[in-house]
Amino acid sequence: MIGRHRHLIGLEDLSREEILEVLKLAVSMKEVLRRPLKKVPTLRGKAVVNLFFEASTRTRSSFETAAKILSADALNWTSAGSSVTKGETLVDTARNLEAMRPDVLVIRHAASGAPRLVAESVACSVVSAGDGAHEHPSQGLLDAFTLAEHFTRASGAGPEAPPDFGLFAGKTVVIVGDVSHSRVARSGLHCLPKLGARVRVCGPPTMIPAGIEKLGAEVHYSLQKAVEGADAVMMLRIQHERIGDPLIPNTREYSRLWGLNARKAADWLTPQCCILHPGPINRGVELSPDVADGPRSVILDQVQNGVAVRMAILYLLAGGGAADV
Amino acid sequence: MIGRHRHLIGLEDLSREEILEVLKLAVSMKEVLRRPLKKVPTLRGKAVVNLFFEASTRTRSSFETAAKILSADALNWTSAGSSVTKGETLVDTARNLEAMRPDVLVIRHAASGAPRLVAESVACSVVSAGDGAHEHPSQGLLDAFTLAEHFTRASGAGPEAPPDFGLFAGKTVVIVGDVSHSRVARSGLHCLPKLGARVRVCGPPTMIPAGIEKLGAEVHYSLQKAVEGADAVMMLRIQHERIGDPLIPNTREYSRLWGLNARKAADWLTPQCCILHPGPINRGVELSPDVADGPRSVILDQVQNGVAVRMAILYLLAGGGAADV
Amino acid sequence: MIGRHRHLIGLEDLSREEILEVLKLAVSMKEVLRRPLKKVPTLRGKAVVNLFFEASTRTRSSFETAAKILSADALNWTSAGSSVTKGETLVDTARNLEAMRPDVLVIRHAASGAPRLVAESVACSVVSAGDGAHEHPSQGLLDAFTLAEHFTRASGAGPEAPPDFGLFAGKTVVIVGDVSHSRVARSGLHCLPKLGARVRVCGPPTMIPAGIEKLGAEVHYSLQKAVEGADAVMMLRIQHERIGDPLIPNTREYSRLWGLNARKAADWLTPQCCILHPGPINRGVELSPDVADGPRSVILDQVQNGVAVRMAILYLLAGGGAADV
Repeated sequence: MIGRHRHLIGLEDLSREEILEVLKLAVSMKEVLRRPLKKVPTLRGKAVVNLFFEASTRTRSSFETAAKILSADALNWTSAGSSVTKGETLVDTARNLEAMRPDVLVIRHAASGAPRLVAESVACSVVSAGDGAHEHPSQGLLDAFTLAEHFTRASGAGPEAPPDFGLFAGKTVVIVGDVSHSRVARSGLHCLPKLGARVRVCGPPTMIPAGIEKLGAEVHYSLQKAVEGADAVMMLRIQHERIGDPLIPNTREYSRLWGLNARKAADWLTPQCCILHPGPINRGVELSPDVADGPRSVILDQVQNGVAVRMAILYLLAGGGAADV
Repeated sequence: MIGRHRHLIGLEDLSREEILEVLKLAVSMKEVLRRPLKKVPTLRGKAVVNLFFEASTRTRSSFETAAKILSADALNWTSAGSSVTKGETLVDTARNLEAMRPDVLVIRHAASGAPRLVAESVACSVVSAGDGAHEHPSQGLLDAFTLAEHFTRASGAGPEAPPDFGLFAGKTVVIVGDVSHSRVARSGLHCLPKLGARVRVCGPPTMIPAGIEKLGAEVHYSLQKAVEGADAVMMLRIQHERIGDPLIPNTREYSRLWGLNARKAADWLTPQCCILHPGPINRGVELSPDVADGPRSVILDQVQNGVAVRMAILYLLAGGGAADV
Repeated sequence: MIGRHRHLIGLEDLSREEILEVLKLAVSMKEVLRRPLKKVPTLRGKAVVNLFFEASTRTRSSFETAAKILSADALNWTSAGSSVTKGETLVDTARNLEAMRPDVLVIRHAASGAPRLVAESVACSVVSAGDGAHEHPSQGLLDAFTLAEHFTRASGAGPEAPPDFGLFAGKTVVIVGDVSHSRVARSGLHCLPKLGARVRVCGPPTMIPAGIEKLGAEVHYSLQKAVEGADAVMMLRIQHERIGDPLIPNTREYSRLWGLNARKAADWLTPQCCILHPGPINRGVELSPDVADGPRSVILDQVQNGVAVRMAILYLLAGGGAADV
């Protein structure tokens, strides 16, 4: 259980306390992940099934690694042949899998709402690994964890100091790109304000959803204005199918208006502003290589923290006993 | 060993006693599967290779889950590029895999006879996970296990009573659909009569193989007649490539003649008759959704029992020591 | 560490002593592999990632089996979508994976040099599982191991005698086929002379690289001359895309000039000459079936030794403690 929840479908559902429960547990999990011997018997005898209807080696591997470090059995079930219109088939697949007695079903699907539909049909726990343009809750949590680490380092704490989740208050995080179609953005928007941060969104007008101010976001159409005084900038991945939009005729134009390179970073960002990206990066589009690999980038921290956060999620939902990690 | 057998190629080869050996062991295995911690060290140090030449996430996952619960290592080897005509390549692949020292090779192949060919070429145990239109022995065993559970419940035993495998005597099981091309039907026909049940088959005349009476089956061409007084109905999955047969111009026509819906079930079936389906269901074709998800359906029991039966098969063939489950 | 090396990119980099370090450890590993319970806790808590940009169930399964026997966690990451031109993407993928804290990254890539590029970018150990036409070092080591076993048996030692790696001195090994494009040949050429063997290469003139004599190889254009007095013949797999070369109009012609059948083997080979092939065999092209399956063939030994050699490689690089196998 994460607080009152048996499933993790979206961060919209979680309270500040529930979000902090996961993040705090992830601190211990990251310590396990960084040991020379990365193995604890905590979830031995538990089973995690990765049910991916969209290709994603990255997120699937992260959940699989998290499961294995906790000694759970991990089973991968990938299916290309499922469409948005086959709601019943999705539920049939999930109920069949459930009959094999997994403890957690991790599901990625192109259709928004698919994980909730499955959660309503099965007795085991369901974790969304991203559904359509809805949410990607484990990404939102790993982003928050990474930001807390950065804010802690920036506050002058030593390099080994644990992340201080109280440091979001008064911080400004900017999300840049195709916010409309981004489940990463949506999970960030449901998470960061609960932790105390201000969120600005910025991108081509056609890619900023109407009414997003209701989620507490400030909207900008100038990147320079958006990042002014910001503590962190989260660059979204632009999908190739969006290129060709009247406002974004090509990737060069996107990069010119919405990308970050070393010059813009030096001119526009405060010295302590860090840069996140959910990956995989379109190098030279959202970020120039020198920025992606530069000192402001916490992108690889995000990947590592992803495993730690997913260990915490699996631990809480698979009903591990005492936190014997 | 299953009785005298090092391999499990088909239920035609097994005696009544050998079938019962697997089913009885599966009772303990199901108890393990239903524990909160689903893990026993029984097959630690043993290796199971899934060698699938036909796509089947369902059956492959069931064997993989069974192996992992018993602490065996499971390796998946999928190959789309093998055709019926490359007999030598199949044996080469199997002998190569065998050189990596698996204890059990689970093989699915589109060609009838492929598992036997492999069994004759390797030193390890071979389990057929379905070959062409020949047999699907683990499916036949899980169907029998599920029927025994149903008959036990129907006899008034408590919900926790173990399945009584003596209850097949005098029972009638009807297999409906494309019997000719069904390895599920063939394994059922080789298994159920040995346990004491009568078997009827029913379907379009072009889909009932000539001479099937020799296997002890009664042939019907009217679904209503076939299911009269039956204790269980096993609906086969219709393959889309069979639609277009002069007798089955479309799925609606198939459904009208050979499908079950709530009305037919209420009018034609005895109150205690259960419904099986090997999955995946073509909803609205073989079964209407209300029947597939209704109280007569034991379809998800079949999936769960599949893991238990495969645990028993792997245990017997991989040479587990004392039954320390 | 293998000697001074944190990575295994190619046998060109290894000294005679470093090669022998792996081969000698593989003797104990093969003993583990042949136990009824093939499992040691040596690498428990260590993680091996298989990052394969070319399809190869065979080599991938061998590394996966090796990892599991040593109790390491194994994760498979396959990617078809990566091209030679996307050097940055490859490094991004590897650095992302590295952030998940694997101990060893096993990489196969169509581009020569890809594993070295990755090794320069990550902190974990990198093992090449074959890169373009460059090297396939674990194959070169398993070939050497298999040859040593054969030479030991041929020397009159008992069937249980461990391989004597001192027996390469004075032996002649012939590599036959498309040497130019073969990473197997290249690793053999970098390994066998260091162990004391003489190497001859033989094939169509267009498939023998210019200057190969500098690696110490003797070049032959007549198969009969090449194998005269040889102690072992290593037949390379001919790639179908090479057929059509002016010198090799079809597979029959290839087989006539460069293949081995029972008659040629009987007429041309010394009684103790063994035959190797990296697999998969094009039966009837490089080798006739009777030779591939005959008494001279050590092809399945190669497969089994491949697991043992890879166990040794993973053990040395993943930093196992005392050799408690």
